Amino acid sequence: MKCNVLAIGTELLLGQIVDTNSAWLGEQLALAGIDSYDHRKVGDNLGRMVTALSDLLDEAQAVIVCGGLGPTPDDVTREAIAEVMGVPLVRREELVEKIAAMFGMRDRDMPANNLRQADIPEGACVIPNSLGTAPGIMAEIAGKVIYAVPGVPYEMQAMIKDFVIPDLLERAGMRSVIVSRSLKTWGTSESGLAEMIATQVDAQSNPSIAFLARGIEGLYVRLTAKAANESDARALIETEETELRAILGDLIFAVDDETMESVVLKACAERGWSLGVAESLTGGLIGARLANVPGASTTFRGSIASYATEVKRSVLGVTASSVVSAECVAQMAEGAQRVLGCDAAVAVTGVAGPDEQEGQPVGTVWFGVAVTGHATETVSTRLPGDRERIRQFSTISALNLLRLRLNSF
Amino acid sequence: MKCNVLAIGTELLLGQIVDTNSAWLGEQLALAGIDSYDHRKVGDNLGRMVTALSDLLDEAQAVIVCGGLGPTPDDVTREAIAEVMGVPLVRREELVEKIAAMFGMRDRDMPANNLRQADIPEGACVIPNSLGTAPGIMAEIAGKVIYAVPGVPYEMQAMIKDFVIPDLLERAGMRSVIVSRSLKTWGTSESGLAEMIATQVDAQSNPSIAFLARGIEGLYVRLTAKAANESDARALIETEETELRAILGDLIFAVDDETMESVVLKACAERGWSLGVAESLTGGLIGARLANVPGASTTFRGSIASYATEVKRSVLGVTASSVVSAECVAQMAEGAQRVLGCDAAVAVTGVAGPDEQEGQPVGTVWFGVAVTGHATETVSTRLPGDRERIRQFSTISALNLLRLRLNSF
Repeated sequence: MKCNVLAIGTELLLGQIVDTNSAWLGEQLALAGIDSYDHRKVGDNLGRMVTALSDLLDEAQAVIVCGGLGPTPDDVTREAIAEVMGVPLVRREELVEKIAAMFGMRDRDMPANNLRQADIPEGACVIPNSLGTAPGIMAEIAGKVIYAVPGVPYEMQAMIKDFVIPDLLERAGMRSVIVSRSLKTWGTSESGLAEMIATQVDAQSNPSIAFLARGIEGLYVRLTAKAANESDARALIETEETELRAILGDLIFAVDDETMESVVLKACAERGWSLGVAESLTGGLIGARLANVPGASTTFRGSIASYATEVKRSVLGVTASSVVSAECVAQMAEGAQRVLGCDAAVAVTGVAGPDEQEGQPVGTVWFGVAVTGHATETVSTRLPGDRERIRQFSTISALNLLRLRLNSF
Repeated sequence: MKCNVLAIGTELLLGQIVDTNSAWLGEQLALAGIDSYDHRKVGDNLGRMVTALSDLLDEAQAVIVCGGLGPTPDDVTREAIAEVMGVPLVRREELVEKIAAMFGMRDRDMPANNLRQADIPEGACVIPNSLGTAPGIMAEIAGKVIYAVPGVPYEMQAMIKDFVIPDLLERAGMRSVIVSRSLKTWGTSESGLAEMIATQVDAQSNPSIAFLARGIEGLYVRLTAKAANESDARALIETEETELRAILGDLIFAVDDETMESVVLKACAERGWSLGVAESLTGGLIGARLANVPGASTTFRGSIASYATEVKRSVLGVTASSVVSAECVAQMAEGAQRVLGCDAAVAVTGVAGPDEQEGQPVGTVWFGVAVTGHATETVSTRLPGDRERIRQFSTISALNLLRLRLNSF
């Protein structure tokens, strides 16, 4: 089964918006085991849309067209599909009513443009949109199929997951359920990870195993299982996951929607501990990530970004002569504990560049974790890359050290 | 003049990488006045690349192909262009030497794969790559042209700006220089901005005027001028800029590569003032943005992210009963000044959600600016959107308030 992708929008061609939808669609198709070899972008131009749709449909059994379903006159995906099918558009009364209801109006009060969204090529099906006014379209043409979905990412994603992928699998005769799970790791390289689980990677069939490098979000090991039903697919994943966890252990910090910061906050909350941060080169990034987790306020007390040396001394009580040292980072963590009144604290100091500091090269970073009733732990590393990268990697590395320390209790 | 774009890479189709290069290319072509109607992505597959290249060249006078110039066997852009041209690849000795030199090796010690980058279709030209080992290629076919550039963004961008765009303009008979300048604004909507400068927008010809909404980076007014030479183009822009500045005034916070944070740090540095921050709902984002500016350490002292109410009281000395109030944010700013020992301080507190706080709705945010020797200023606003958006808008709004306050002295 092959399915191509066509993204619609002049703003995409002009670079005013980056087309992230196609990448997401490509990932979903790959997960479902459907090949996708040709992705295109064209502007809001009927002639070019018709040509692109016809070409893409020639090469594959299905095409997903994304965007151009809005109410304004430049939204012509409906017209393009009708032209490819060789049929007129028909106004669907049930859609008129639904659109009017979503605007809280009677249909006769609707701006005429909005009613364009009720026009569907004759003989095509409506794909329901529970999250917006633009219905999707499924059009069958000579045994092939075009799916039109809105360009708004969350509306598009819901429609693809709930309708398009299951329909594609049905057409492909793949009457199976696909479930995937990402084990998020931090602490080793892709090649290091591949070496550790080489036996499992070599023997993979169902579930399949893929590595996804997601920068400072971690390196993911993604398991994808196919089975007759969801619980069988989940059971396959769980068996594989247990085997991988036995090898990867603490390298796995989270699963699926969890993040490093949500995991750290949860570990603190489970122990009834409050959390604080002392930062230097990261300038507030660690605190900002923690504060972005909904519900952080029950655990996270705050962060002291002591960028200037005098602030490290006056606010955190640092007495170490070097501010890029084990002694300094330990005093910062303990200072944060004292000043913020928290049970656990993580601290980071180092050289983000562009210039070296105290004779220490750019990328030298010290991390410290202080937990009430335990000895303060410090670790140093040497991070590669530019200023921004060093700061980002320092942030996740600090949170990971804290995670490992919390898990050791 | 029409120029299409082809992005190469199986990882793009699988959604492992989002194709930001095509968006950037589309923007550069639009700026240069060159039409670009069809953008495609295909994987590392010789047959599909040849088909896509031929099709795209049929529709336009030029095609830019991005990626697939690396040293590994799956990099086959060189082969694809040779096939479209109907010629063999030829190893260029001067490129062999250059690649060997970049690896610090003699050519006979080079891994054979790396030497593949010295292979160029017979009759094609080399586009020099000053930043990496992969040379670009310019291939002329029946009066049309293919440019192959690397997928590494900074190498690609340098090659496009220095070679491809000037060559396209020359071919188009546009022997003119194009200069653009973005005036970055904060404080009003796109429609508000459009209304203020409606006369200029309606009368625009050279320079042209475009609005670009860049989220929390601001709303840009981009001027693009064409002239026989660079100084004439710059003069055209300066005349228009003077006129727009007379209307937009303080709404313009920066130009081109400047950012809100770099402008704020510069304004402090010019006055010899040190800067500090007290944050609540932003959790450290303001400090993190300031610390990301190279050279920030001469001015930026630090940030107190007082997320918990007790930290506002114990560290910053807040006595206000409500922590979402003018009194609280003023005390936070003055507390930051005192604790961090700085001349100027900005503070922010508010309700990021998901729940309301002290009976105040999600999105309620207070800002305060304290400057030594002046009365502390406070402002409140009500921001729309979800938690992440409220935090991001609070960050730039706080920095903007500080900028306006600094400019008033």
